[in-house]
Amino acid sequence: MTEQKATNVHWHEGEVTRADRGKLLGQQGATIWFTGLSGSGKSTVAVALEKVLHAQGRLAYRLDGDNVRMGINKNLGFSAEDRAENIRRIGEVAKLFVDAGVIVLSSFVSPYRADRDLVRKLHEESGMAFIEVYVDVPLEEAEKRDPKGLYKKARAGQIKNFTGIDDPYEAPAQPEIVLPSHEMSLEAEVEALLKLLAERGIVAA
Amino acid sequence: MTEQKATNVHWHEGEVTRADRGKLLGQQGATIWFTGLSGSGKSTVAVALEKVLHAQGRLAYRLDGDNVRMGINKNLGFSAEDRAENIRRIGEVAKLFVDAGVIVLSSFVSPYRADRDLVRKLHEESGMAFIEVYVDVPLEEAEKRDPKGLYKKARAGQIKNFTGIDDPYEAPAQPEIVLPSHEMSLEAEVEALLKLLAERGIVAA
Repeated sequence: MTEQKATNVHWHEGEVTRADRGKLLGQQGATIWFTGLSGSGKSTVAVALEKVLHAQGRLAYRLDGDNVRMGINKNLGFSAEDRAENIRRIGEVAKLFVDAGVIVLSSFVSPYRADRDLVRKLHEESGMAFIEVYVDVPLEEAEKRDPKGLYKKARAGQIKNFTGIDDPYEAPAQPEIVLPSHEMSLEAEVEALLKLLAERGIVAA
Repeated sequence: MTEQKATNVHWHEGEVTRADRGKLLGQQGATIWFTGLSGSGKSTVAVALEKVLHAQGRLAYRLDGDNVRMGINKNLGFSAEDRAENIRRIGEVAKLFVDAGVIVLSSFVSPYRADRDLVRKLHEESGMAFIEVYVDVPLEEAEKRDPKGLYKKARAGQIKNFTGIDDPYEAPAQPEIVLPSHEMSLEAEVEALLKLLAERGIVAA
């Protein structure tokens, strides 16, 4: 066990920093926070952006209901308190990814302004980029799409406290970008986001 | 907003997968879970391994008390229930990082076998590598080092339920590797870990 074969061990001073990881990856970690009604197209644009970033050699990672609600937040329900804790934990996980150098694509309805503002604050007080993307479609449009059949259930009273039906959606006051997905092509949405990431120095132009 | 300049947008089928990210990074995501008494040297070897991996162009990220207890787990205390939830959340965060392609270096005392075994199960049932590293030093040695002065406080009764003093440490039954840090040089510990990561296909040999 104590045999020394330290041929590829390179010591240097200090710990590996966020900046070191960013240099390794050729990008800056950042959280791209998609917010909007269910059915607004948050995940669609996040998936499309992820593909393009990956094709460009960037490391991006999506946080969404599939990998969060079934994992770290599986012990949370939908009370006001649990919804706030849901978003807080997602914000803290996103921060860890940003610290690791990753571009986080977070897509959750996240209907309450105070919850989103807390996540922004968590990032900004640590010098981390937080890009709030408001995927803004009229309720009628989202309800017409109803990709998961949730509006239908909410209208039938089978789901209570559903955002847009019997629970409010609080639109961002100052999002970094607004994507009216019913009036833009997916390609145009992705282009607009890439332009913003380049402007913010998250990826090279 | 709708102007089309899709010069660098490349569409392809399907979503970006864990395997795709691994290919991009030239490594396989994995959780290296360091467990052992306070003062055993978990963080020291994690920091050293991180440096070497970074110098080799690998993306590694450390989870430890500094970035977890102050963040995602700041609403947890030290009751048995909260300790279990602490480790569960860390395990779920680690899984997300592994899915992103990152080599996670997790260093927490994590004294209870059931908690660690749950994290292993969470990984293995998702086809993710979980490497349990038992940093094994005698209590007397850890207490002699006492880098944070915690044993002194525990002996004085100023800290209750301190692992090794008035709370048990349950050693791993089948860890992937044991590092007796009082009998090995730091270089030898790092070499042993690098060898294991290569054997498991997490990094290229």
